[in-house]
Amino acid sequence: MKHFRKELWFETRLRRELINITPELDRCVSESGVQNGLALCNAMHITASVFINDDESGLHQDFEEWLEQLAPEKPHSRYRHNTYEDNGDAHLKRTIMGREVVVAITDGRLDLGPWEQVFYGEFDGKRRKRVLVKIIGE
Amino acid sequence: MKHFRKELWFETRLRRELINITPELDRCVSESGVQNGLALCNAMHITASVFINDDESGLHQDFEEWLEQLAPEKPHSRYRHNTYEDNGDAHLKRTIMGREVVVAITDGRLDLGPWEQVFYGEFDGKRRKRVLVKIIGE
Amino acid sequence: MKHFRKELWFETRLRRELINITPELDRCVSESGVQNGLALCNAMHITASVFINDDESGLHQDFEEWLEQLAPEKPHSRYRHNTYEDNGDAHLKRTIMGREVVVAITDGRLDLGPWEQVFYGEFDGKRRKRVLVKIIGE
Repeated sequence: MKHFRKELWFETRLRRELINITPELDRCVSESGVQNGLALCNAMHITASVFINDDESGLHQDFEEWLEQLAPEKPHSRYRHNTYEDNGDAHLKRTIMGREVVVAITDGRLDLGPWEQVFYGEFDGKRRKRVLVKIIGE
Repeated sequence: MKHFRKELWFETRLRRELINITPELDRCVSESGVQNGLALCNAMHITASVFINDDESGLHQDFEEWLEQLAPEKPHSRYRHNTYEDNGDAHLKRTIMGREVVVAITDGRLDLGPWEQVFYGEFDGKRRKRVLVKIIGE
Repeated sequence: MKHFRKELWFETRLRRELINITPELDRCVSESGVQNGLALCNAMHITASVFINDDESGLHQDFEEWLEQLAPEKPHSRYRHNTYEDNGDAHLKRTIMGREVVVAITDGRLDLGPWEQVFYGEFDGKRRKRVLVKIIGE
C-alpha cells in the first residue's frame, strides 16, 4: 500500500471565500503515484470546509446568502462562543458545508463526475490556514 | 490490496426522490471480494446526495418538507444560479444531505447499524444520473 | 494491509449530549498498529452523529440552540415520523451534524489540526447506542 500526505495552505483576503482546489488535489494524486485508492481532503481548522459542488459564481453567491440566513455572522453577541471570539457563525457555516470529502482514485486520476469540483470554504479568513490531503492505495 | 469500482445509474420520475440503494451496495461488496476495508459511495452529480438514514416513509416526507423550508425550490428567481438553470435549490438541498458516505466492510459485509440504510437522494431528477461505488481493502 | 474494528458504547443521561471521543479514538489508533492510513468513525444509529469541531462549552450551547431552531423537537406532532416515535427531530439534527468523519493517520497518530476534536453527538439518548471505528492502513 502506498500513502501520501500534503498540506495546502491558504490566506484569504476576505473573511469568507470559496477557492477551487481541484488542480492542487490533482497534482497530489499524480505525486502520490497511486493508481487506485482513496483521497481524503479535509480542513484542518474548525471554521473552514472542504466540499464538492459547481464552480459557478451565481451559486457561490447563493451559498453566501443562504449561509448568512442559516447562521448569520452578526450581531457577534448572538453566539455564546463569542466571548473572546467573533467567529461563532463560522463554526456553524462550516458544519453545514462539511469538513471533508473522500474522493475515489481510479487509473491514477480523481474519479469525479462531470461538474464535480473540490472547494476550500473559508468562513473566518484573513489568516494562514490549511487543508490536509491524505491518499492511500496502490 | 483489492479495489473495485462500479457506477449505479438512476432516472427518477419525479424531481425529488429518495431511493434505498443498500441492496446494490451489498452486491458491490460481494463482487469486490473485499473482506475488510472501506466502501465509498458518492453522488457524481452536484444536485444529488448519498446519505444514511431510516427507511421510513413518514421520515422521508419530513425530509421533503424540511428541505423545502431550508432551501425552497420556488420562485426559481430567488437563486442567482438560476439564470439558465432552475436547480439552485437542489445544490443547497444536497449540501444539507451530504455528497457521500464511507461505510466499513467487515467479514465481507457492509458493517451497518441495525437501522442504517443507504439512500440515493435525487433533488433534480427526471434525467439519467449516477453514483460511484469505490471499494478498497483485502 | 492492516485493519482494525472497535465499537464504542454510550448511554447519555440527557436526550441530547455532545461527548469528546478523541481519547478513545487515539487509543484505537494505537491498538491498531497502523502507522499510515485512514480511520472511519461513524454513528451506528440514525439519530446520532460523529463530527469534528471545537471543545468549547459556549459553542456547544450554540449548537444546541441552533439545531433547535433548524429542527425543533416539539411539538412532537410536527413530524410525520412521530407516529409511534418522538425522535423525528433527532434524525434531522443528525443530518445537519453528519454521520461520520474520516481522519488521516500519519506516523501512528490521528492527523488532526490544532483545534480539531472528535465528538459523539447524541440527539435521542438515555439508551445504549454505539459508534463504529474502522481503521485500515499499514
